[in-house]
Amino acid sequence: MAAADDHAHHAKRWLVPPGSTPGLHDIDTRSTEGAPGSKAETEPVSDAMVVALGELQTRLWAEDRQSLLIVLQAMDAGGKDGTIRKVFTGVNPQGVRVASFKAPTPQELDHDFLWRINKEAPGHGELGVFNRSHYEDVLIARVDELVPEAVWRARFEQIRNFESTLSASGTRVVKFFLHISKDEQAERLQARLDDPTKRWKFAAADLDVRKRWDDYQVAYEEAIGQTSVHHAPWYVIPADRKWYRNWAILNVLLAHLHDMDPQFPPEEPGLDGLVVV
Amino acid sequence: MAAADDHAHHAKRWLVPPGSTPGLHDIDTRSTEGAPGSKAETEPVSDAMVVALGELQTRLWAEDRQSLLIVLQAMDAGGKDGTIRKVFTGVNPQGVRVASFKAPTPQELDHDFLWRINKEAPGHGELGVFNRSHYEDVLIARVDELVPEAVWRARFEQIRNFESTLSASGTRVVKFFLHISKDEQAERLQARLDDPTKRWKFAAADLDVRKRWDDYQVAYEEAIGQTSVHHAPWYVIPADRKWYRNWAILNVLLAHLHDMDPQFPPEEPGLDGLVVV
Repeated sequence: MAAADDHAHHAKRWLVPPGSTPGLHDIDTRSTEGAPGSKAETEPVSDAMVVALGELQTRLWAEDRQSLLIVLQAMDAGGKDGTIRKVFTGVNPQGVRVASFKAPTPQELDHDFLWRINKEAPGHGELGVFNRSHYEDVLIARVDELVPEAVWRARFEQIRNFESTLSASGTRVVKFFLHISKDEQAERLQARLDDPTKRWKFAAADLDVRKRWDDYQVAYEEAIGQTSVHHAPWYVIPADRKWYRNWAILNVLLAHLHDMDPQFPPEEPGLDGLVVV
Repeated sequence: MAAADDHAHHAKRWLVPPGSTPGLHDIDTRSTEGAPGSKAETEPVSDAMVVALGELQTRLWAEDRQSLLIVLQAMDAGGKDGTIRKVFTGVNPQGVRVASFKAPTPQELDHDFLWRINKEAPGHGELGVFNRSHYEDVLIARVDELVPEAVWRARFEQIRNFESTLSASGTRVVKFFLHISKDEQAERLQARLDDPTKRWKFAAADLDVRKRWDDYQVAYEEAIGQTSVHHAPWYVIPADRKWYRNWAILNVLLAHLHDMDPQFPPEEPGLDGLVVV
């Protein structure tokens, strides 16, 4: 299928090959490489891809045998919410499950770090979206020293094992790091401050996290390098330009869904010639 | 607000007033009363209402203090799935949670009938959609005599109490019976049989349920009459014409959301003049 090949071709551009570690500093966050054209030329292409995504999700839902789990990670203002709004609005919400992970509750902290995550894993037929995820437990947990190094370091293997179990039950795990520059983050945070209708989104605590920018980049590099595997790959998406980010993510999702190739289920036997009275 | 008044005005047309029991047989399932015009004239109006629904949901999500729970009940092929697809596709799936209730599992049957329901109740800021619901426990449970009459009859009060508790925690419960005629159901089931791309949706067991049509109508009338209350009203929607059904439901949802009037939350103090560096 030509379109599927095209998506797979593009998706490789942002893939972190298993066994490698991305050099985040060397990736151009303003890249528009491979895009169909300018913003105005690319957006209609993305709109059509959202429609295609919806059609494949209908098949996934009908088939009821596989799941797709999409993990979204980014620095603050990196575009997680915007990605969800732009990429998944237009997909039938029956069959989409978005889970947002905030700071763990006392009850969640009484369990292993994957306990609350597994409860939100998509069931067969579902397209699950994680807005933040178990990766926070090797990111903020590391940078803020919430747990000793031996604890967070052991989590790389625990995460690999967990995602391997998901994969064995029919869940494809596709992970995105929405990569913005530090300057872009400053612009976006300032824009929230300056727009009275967006100011409620601004949290002063985000500025403290911003001060640890370089530490987070190091933590992301290692987390991504340690956990990009064939059945659960990471993609680093240049995300300073939102239209390019959306187009890139849609390519990756369509490539995976075409590869999963969900089928409508067989009909019940004995329906031929049946008349409803 | 003129639009809000307009929606509230229309919504009253389908409301089951608390204390009354609907006469389902007397309601014209092909009605298009009050519609802006023909199908072609009404659909663009509905499209604009979906956009308005999305905007109100954004405020609900941001406010994070109230929830809207939408219960969809209907006979087979009554249009529950189609309603979800048409009314909620276009709303940001972050903040929408669709729960489909099938036959209870052995574990669910080991608990009271509301146990599995409450787990799916929407949290603050969420718009929850129930595709079937706890009402099955006074419908199929009654018609198929799954439990004695004393058991299902006591559930009316249990449901009222449950929904009253939801209401006290900020959840508006809005319940829809998508009312189709028996002839319309025959047409829709036959269409599934005759279309090879839709035949997988056809279950021969639906024909057994169809034979109990009149029993279900009686069960629906009593269930609706017993549980339509001010904070959790029922609406009987003439649903033979899908475009009218969608327009009617959107009117009811917009009327309730305008009445709930969600507000963006206040900003953090001390942000004036802050510059991101």
